[in-house]
Amino acid sequence: MRLLTRALLLASSTLVALPPLAAEGMWTLDNLPRESMEKTYGFKPAPAWLEKSMRSAVRLAGGCSGSFVSAQGLVLTNHHCVASCVEDLSSQAQDLVNNGFLAKTHSEEKQCPGMELNRLEKTEDVTARMQKALAGLAGKAFSDAKKAEQSLIEKECAGDAGDQRRCDIVELYGGGQYHVYQYARYQDVRLVFAPEYAAGFFGGDPDNFNFPRYNLDMSLLRVYDKAGQPLVNADWFPINPKGAQENELVMTLGHPGTTQRLLTMMELETQRDLVLPFRLLLAAEYRGLLLQYSTQSDEHARIAKTELTNVENGIKARTGMFQSLLSPAVMHQKREQENAFRSWVNNDPARVKTYGDPWQTLNDTQTAWRNLYVDYVMVEIGFGAMSQHVTWARTLVRGTEEKAKPDGQRLREFSDANLPAVQAALFAESPLYTDFERTKLAWSLSKLREKLGVDNPAVKRILGKKSPEAIADAIVSQSKLGDISVRKQLWEGGNAAVKRSDDPAIELALLIDGYARQLRTEYDQNIEPIQKAAANQLAKARFAYQGTQVYPDATFSLRLSHGVIRGWEENGKTIKPFTDIGGLFERATDFDPFKLADTWVAAEKKLQKKTRFNQVSTNDIVGGNSGSPLINAKGELVGLIFDGNIQSLGGAYFFDESVNRAVSVHPAAIAAALQHVYKADNLVKELKLK
Amino acid sequence: MRLLTRALLLASSTLVALPPLAAEGMWTLDNLPRESMEKTYGFKPAPAWLEKSMRSAVRLAGGCSGSFVSAQGLVLTNHHCVASCVEDLSSQAQDLVNNGFLAKTHSEEKQCPGMELNRLEKTEDVTARMQKALAGLAGKAFSDAKKAEQSLIEKECAGDAGDQRRCDIVELYGGGQYHVYQYARYQDVRLVFAPEYAAGFFGGDPDNFNFPRYNLDMSLLRVYDKAGQPLVNADWFPINPKGAQENELVMTLGHPGTTQRLLTMMELETQRDLVLPFRLLLAAEYRGLLLQYSTQSDEHARIAKTELTNVENGIKARTGMFQSLLSPAVMHQKREQENAFRSWVNNDPARVKTYGDPWQTLNDTQTAWRNLYVDYVMVEIGFGAMSQHVTWARTLVRGTEEKAKPDGQRLREFSDANLPAVQAALFAESPLYTDFERTKLAWSLSKLREKLGVDNPAVKRILGKKSPEAIADAIVSQSKLGDISVRKQLWEGGNAAVKRSDDPAIELALLIDGYARQLRTEYDQNIEPIQKAAANQLAKARFAYQGTQVYPDATFSLRLSHGVIRGWEENGKTIKPFTDIGGLFERATDFDPFKLADTWVAAEKKLQKKTRFNQVSTNDIVGGNSGSPLINAKGELVGLIFDGNIQSLGGAYFFDESVNRAVSVHPAAIAAALQHVYKADNLVKELKLK
Repeated sequence: MRLLTRALLLASSTLVALPPLAAEGMWTLDNLPRESMEKTYGFKPAPAWLEKSMRSAVRLAGGCSGSFVSAQGLVLTNHHCVASCVEDLSSQAQDLVNNGFLAKTHSEEKQCPGMELNRLEKTEDVTARMQKALAGLAGKAFSDAKKAEQSLIEKECAGDAGDQRRCDIVELYGGGQYHVYQYARYQDVRLVFAPEYAAGFFGGDPDNFNFPRYNLDMSLLRVYDKAGQPLVNADWFPINPKGAQENELVMTLGHPGTTQRLLTMMELETQRDLVLPFRLLLAAEYRGLLLQYSTQSDEHARIAKTELTNVENGIKARTGMFQSLLSPAVMHQKREQENAFRSWVNNDPARVKTYGDPWQTLNDTQTAWRNLYVDYVMVEIGFGAMSQHVTWARTLVRGTEEKAKPDGQRLREFSDANLPAVQAALFAESPLYTDFERTKLAWSLSKLREKLGVDNPAVKRILGKKSPEAIADAIVSQSKLGDISVRKQLWEGGNAAVKRSDDPAIELALLIDGYARQLRTEYDQNIEPIQKAAANQLAKARFAYQGTQVYPDATFSLRLSHGVIRGWEENGKTIKPFTDIGGLFERATDFDPFKLADTWVAAEKKLQKKTRFNQVSTNDIVGGNSGSPLINAKGELVGLIFDGNIQSLGGAYFFDESVNRAVSVHPAAIAAALQHVYKADNLVKELKLK
Repeated sequence: MRLLTRALLLASSTLVALPPLAAEGMWTLDNLPRESMEKTYGFKPAPAWLEKSMRSAVRLAGGCSGSFVSAQGLVLTNHHCVASCVEDLSSQAQDLVNNGFLAKTHSEEKQCPGMELNRLEKTEDVTARMQKALAGLAGKAFSDAKKAEQSLIEKECAGDAGDQRRCDIVELYGGGQYHVYQYARYQDVRLVFAPEYAAGFFGGDPDNFNFPRYNLDMSLLRVYDKAGQPLVNADWFPINPKGAQENELVMTLGHPGTTQRLLTMMELETQRDLVLPFRLLLAAEYRGLLLQYSTQSDEHARIAKTELTNVENGIKARTGMFQSLLSPAVMHQKREQENAFRSWVNNDPARVKTYGDPWQTLNDTQTAWRNLYVDYVMVEIGFGAMSQHVTWARTLVRGTEEKAKPDGQRLREFSDANLPAVQAALFAESPLYTDFERTKLAWSLSKLREKLGVDNPAVKRILGKKSPEAIADAIVSQSKLGDISVRKQLWEGGNAAVKRSDDPAIELALLIDGYARQLRTEYDQNIEPIQKAAANQLAKARFAYQGTQVYPDATFSLRLSHGVIRGWEENGKTIKPFTDIGGLFERATDFDPFKLADTWVAAEKKLQKKTRFNQVSTNDIVGGNSGSPLINAKGELVGLIFDGNIQSLGGAYFFDESVNRAVSVHPAAIAAALQHVYKADNLVKELKLK
């Protein structure tokens, strides 16, 4: 798998003298490179160690990782992973985003609306069963059979556990393997601690994906059981404030979201030439709008803050990915790899017979996908109608139609396994800022018109002779969907009730859904199954070609990565692996985003300036890993992953060990902050930090 | 020169059956393809015809084209070419942008602040003289000698005519030829007529670069002489409201700004991978900011309107260019062309000796240019400090330093030939909207920090421990440069006075200028002269290789393009060459940008619905051609160029005759609008439209 290692080592600096540590890989727990880990680190994870680690790690269903850190259900994750919860719990009168939050007792802990946590309980390989169900099928038949079999397996797995167990089919190696993952599902999750935005995201967007760094990007949640009591859990990671030393083995146990390291050249070119620039340009314009919105008043700034942070984070991430694909060296090396692999297949008639020419098939689907892409993103994914009202309405329109079908025939996001999460989101009690909603909807509808064109028939149907602004005004002023009981009524009334509704958000959602369904069907029947089948053939060929242990692309499911605490070299400069609290005070100015939180200014004298703050390690991580515990061989928590350096963003497509670094909060900073800055004696005690 | 014609004809549709018209080319008047024009159209422009046409065309120094249309100095150009003048003449009380403007008498005509018009009087080939002065030189010596010789030639040409004559060296064929262009310079230019924004730019950004189209993108200016009287001019184009017929020969005489049809592959890749995405992403964010700014109040919208239009126009143009370079077919064809040409040189030792390997040289400078690019754009070009105050301050800082030097040693923008334009801009009386200026400056300084990095030494010097917002606040509230007399005093006080100033805008400009000069020197000494020398070698080789008549890349100097009125085929659909007034009324809605101006609603009954409105022709044009007259063989004006279709944007890099179309206002629409909509009897009479 060590794609590109040679070319990139040549291009980079002095690390050639160090032993190759091969930190690359986001490994499933059932397929760890145990031998090579033992050889490299003298550590071979035992089954019991793995079992305990698996049960100590959690996934935030919204897109992050975390871990249990006490026996009373306390979960450590990032500040940025709970940002939307903190925002939902805030109001103009009580600005928890900027002021932070600390519950001194259990009764002060506040439930995060719509938040779901999952803990992996076990996994099972169901490849043979899936392959049997899919044998000989293609197109719609393939896709229908796949949905049906997935649904059956998930249902068998979930059994009678209702909304306390979640079972997901995970496709590994581009469909080369299917596993069913069984999770404990927690939907009563309460906020315990979040620092001020200025501490959690010190340096803001300018410092994002940068290092040296000084972020207390941490938060604490508590999982409650069905009886409304703090969860009693046996497995958790104790925090060791000493942390790990330079070059010491450290592992992450987290949920990397997506990597695309097995893409073919033409798929990569689609990313470089279409997907990344399209998404970047759309996000850049939206960012400008949010920036200006935020200047209109303090309240505007508060309302837009989380959205702006997310958008800026996405822009930086995609910029790094885009840059990596614009590197002629990277693309050249990828092409060479592909050519060698393809020749290996093509030069042997037996292999050609077994594997066919999946590259050609994938190239053909790329053309279809490129033609569909813009409409799909704007209409089906919904960038052309960004609004809470419309999001609810679209869930109601499509969800009521889907849930009336047998589970196996539904779109996967409305499967029985997913319905509890869909309902949690639909019925979440969160504030609705009408001016902000109007702004987003008017702008995004104007982008729908722009990207698809004024004369596009679907655009004409959706907008009619009205303007984006007029439609947004009508929805914000007349829609009743802000009322949870109205949403509940419609959801329970089913599709007939939804279609009868004269709510303007529902009316718009119905207009959109017509074209969106058409696009979705095109993708689900004529693109995805063909791609999956070809990727599947490619995966089989790759197993045969490489013959050694490989890891699958990230799938937002539990993975272990191993590495060491280590800095890197850049333009002849050595970047050291640790920062300290003294550096934070040096970097501070009187202005956002470099302005210190008041609590830190007040605590300055009590803090040891040499206390380690942030650190970097060679672990192979990607978005979704945010909040992952960084643990040592003893299973102690020695860091809290919250970012990668800018060079790590190419990690979507390849791993360059010489410069790719994971960034984490040092446990010493967590201890010092809770004790001296936030005086959270209850948490210091529960976490045994003193 | 017919790059790509074959590949693109294959890719496109049914035009193969029509005779090849070879409309490609933006020809200098001294090198017209007269024989092929006679063969194709039966028309061979006579010297007197050309002389008269040349003297009837004008250039708007700010970046547009136009033409005299009466003997009393009346000039026809686009609405969008006078937008900033109309904005400067507007106020909250008198919104000329949205309401339009019509002077019924000469005394009502209003001077456009800072506007300069040029009419070409004659040109002279000075290649031999320049080449002699530059023989054997490289790097700084080359660049110094070039500036000195240019300055000498320009000065000799301008003679004692002071600010009434302008002489510019024009480098053609990438430095293969040098010509001196002598212009009459007019600096008293007054607004006579501009329609409402809703008429001039009906359909707004959504319809921009689209066709069918319904824009009255016209305006009228009048040139005044030194005595303050309307200019008496012998040469002008009579407007023929009948226009031209389908397939009839039509020519533009205008000033195309820039094309890059002779770029090497690596230069094109720099455009595709760096320049275009960088500029697009920056502009997209700025657009979002301006869009939201415009929603804050009607007055905010009025203030930001011209800037927003410009930004959106730039985005669409660059998007088209970017798309064209992402086409694998285009890039493949370009690469084949380059390989064939390069082999032709490399396979003959005599040619290698004569021409060297200019491709390699250009490739090497591309690496240097890519490394410099972001800093250069943000700091030297000024995207990192967008503000009227800072623009004035930078002109004062650098201009006072430069004008103290002998002409031949100055940066070219401060040469004697350019100083009158510099001063006209510096002393122009235009409104200053402090909130808007603060917004632009704070945002752009934050982009400076983002694009160069928080830890960049130049950024640290420029921002210090202050925030972009604090710097912008201080400048807007404390700078005195809004007062013309202060700017005059500093300009006349020279560099010593500027350096003594404690004006915060001057202080910022001084900080910026330090790094900006360093970047400029790097470019002027180590990149540009090497590129020019190599491009020069390439141009010589190309003359030898192609052996036929070729045209140079656009240089914002006078060019003729020939073509015919003709629609095109797109996705199996025929796009007809004309629209009519009826179509305008059908397309209208109650909402911007499709809302009709009140005057048009009121005039509906008087207008003939079949009157032609906009039209397309095959002429090869590009940005800078806006406002160009479209004339027939009799020298009558039969159209007013204002746009190209979306496919024409690839024209920056290649011309595809099957789909590349120029869009113009039909003279019948001009006549009908002036007569029935605006009741401009004085103009109808002067233009002899009835």
